[in-house]
Parts: sequence; C-alpha cells; structure tokens
Amino acid sequence: MHEIERKFLVNSDAFKLGAHTSTRIRQGYLSTDPARTVRVRTRGKKAYLTIKGKSNVSGTTRVEVEEEIAFAKAETLLTLCLPGIIDKTRYEVKAGKHVWEIDEFYGANQGLTIAEIELATEEEDFIKPSWLGAEVTGENKYYNSQLSLKPFSLW
Amino acid sequence: MHEIERKFLVNSDAFKLGAHTSTRIRQGYLSTDPARTVRVRTRGKKAYLTIKGKSNVSGTTRVEVEEEIAFAKAETLLTLCLPGIIDKTRYEVKAGKHVWEIDEFYGANQGLTIAEIELATEEEDFIKPSWLGAEVTGENKYYNSQLSLKPFSLW
Repeated sequence: MHEIERKFLVNSDAFKLGAHTSTRIRQGYLSTDPARTVRVRTRGKKAYLTIKGKSNVSGTTRVEVEEEIAFAKAETLLTLCLPGIIDKTRYEVKAGKHVWEIDEFYGANQGLTIAEIELATEEEDFIKPSWLGAEVTGENKYYNSQLSLKPFSLW
Repeated sequence: MHEIERKFLVNSDAFKLGAHTSTRIRQGYLSTDPARTVRVRTRGKKAYLTIKGKSNVSGTTRVEVEEEIAFAKAETLLTLCLPGIIDKTRYEVKAGKHVWEIDEFYGANQGLTIAEIELATEEEDFIKPSWLGAEVTGENKYYNSQLSLKPFSLW
C-alpha cells in the first residue's frame, strides 16, 4: 500500500497531554555508503543494528537485514557512529481515526518538533489539533537524514 | 600476554591427514573506515557481525562489539560487502605442544595455503612438519586484510 504522509511543525507542548505513548529514539550511522548503510538505533529499552543495500532500479526493493542487539552494545556503537546522531522522543497522539507521530528533537536539533500523519489518500480529511503549526510536507531539510547532516541549530 | 606468531607457506596437502578440525570461514567488510570497521564472518555454521573502533594512541585497546547473527542473515550481508571476500578453510593440526592453524584459501586466493603457529617466546622451539614450506612471517601481502585488497591470483 502506498500511503500519504503529511508533516507539520508543532507550535506548543500541548500535544503531550494527549499522548498515549512516548519513546526515546537515538540513531546514528556506522556507514552511509548507499550500497551498504549500517544504522544503530535505540528505541526505548530495545536496540537494533540495521544494514541496507542499494535500492533496485525502480526503487521498490532493497536488501535489509535487522538484528536486535543488547542496549549496552548499541550505546557503545553510538559512540563509534559518524557525526550527526539523531536523538528524539516520539510521542503518539490519537485524533479521530488517525494517530499523530510527534518527534521532539534534542541535541543539535533541540527546539524542533515535527508531527506526522499517515493518510490513505491525498483527499482524506483529518482533525487539526490546536498545537499544529505550518505544513512542511516534502521539505527536505526536515527529513532525519538531512537533520543528521545539517541540524536545526545550524539553520 | 604478547604472543609470537610465525607464518609459513605450505607445500603439500599432507597436513590434512593430521588435522583434527576443519572450519570453513568466509568474511567480508561492510565498512573499512578504521574508526568504525564492520566485518561479517561465517565460521562453520555460526555467523558474526563485528564492529571495531579506532585503536588508541598506544595501539593497546580498541572498542569492539561482536554479535552472533543467523547464518542466513550473514549470507545476505556477504552479498552487500565490499569487493574482496575472504573464503578459506581453517585446519588445526597438533604438533607436540603446539597447534598449527592452516588456512587453505579459495576464490581469488585459490592456490594459497598458509600455516601459523603461536609461540610463547621468540626462542621457543617447535616441530617442523614435512609439509612446511618457506617462512613468510611479517610479509604484509600474506595478511588477510592484504589478501582481500590484492588477492594471490593477482600477484
């Protein structure tokens, strides 16, 4: 299924009142070679090492191997990663039949909070909470890969 | 403990008669960046992912994280590795109080067989089996890292 993802800024902390989960996520890269990227990620108390190959010509498939590893090992690996560790808390907030995923960033991206919603079609309606700011869908600088290279504090 | 390692060529297959174990080893690298090398290795039916950081200034310590992974995952990862997969069978042959480790190489290093022995001191004596050829201790081109970059078939 091809889903539509829309991305917005967040203009207050009010979303935290409605959040039903929050998870700390840290991630970094041991290799950014597109033919063999190696990512380290901690997600709450769990940790993963994920290796991805190059996408095929049509961009539809990509070899991916994921391994759950001990949290302490991941913490060691994060110290070996290339500069640009992403550190954020992900909150989930239900709104009608949708779930907002809201990333509050720390470190070099401190001050940035982004909300995402997945829609089934471009036309699908959704509730706009009071804390929702300007739409930034499609703006590259808000992608995690870009935030790693050029963090919010350097904008 | 600092051990002395001596390395020799092997001039016949006769060592196989005395071998008490043999293990197929394949290994490749997802990253050769010295600050964050990522190695994939299968050893018999087992498989490992090993990440190493840079050595400290005196060369005595190096961060290392090893994770045992499913053999099938390692086989997938080997297809993503940089060129220069090392493929060999390691035989172990007891000789007196020592154990010879003998690597018979395949692929781009086919035709090369190397025997290694670990000694406690430079002066320690050891039995020289009939199949033992010329000593190559300290010759860089016989190291696995070099055999990966410039295999025997290209010498």
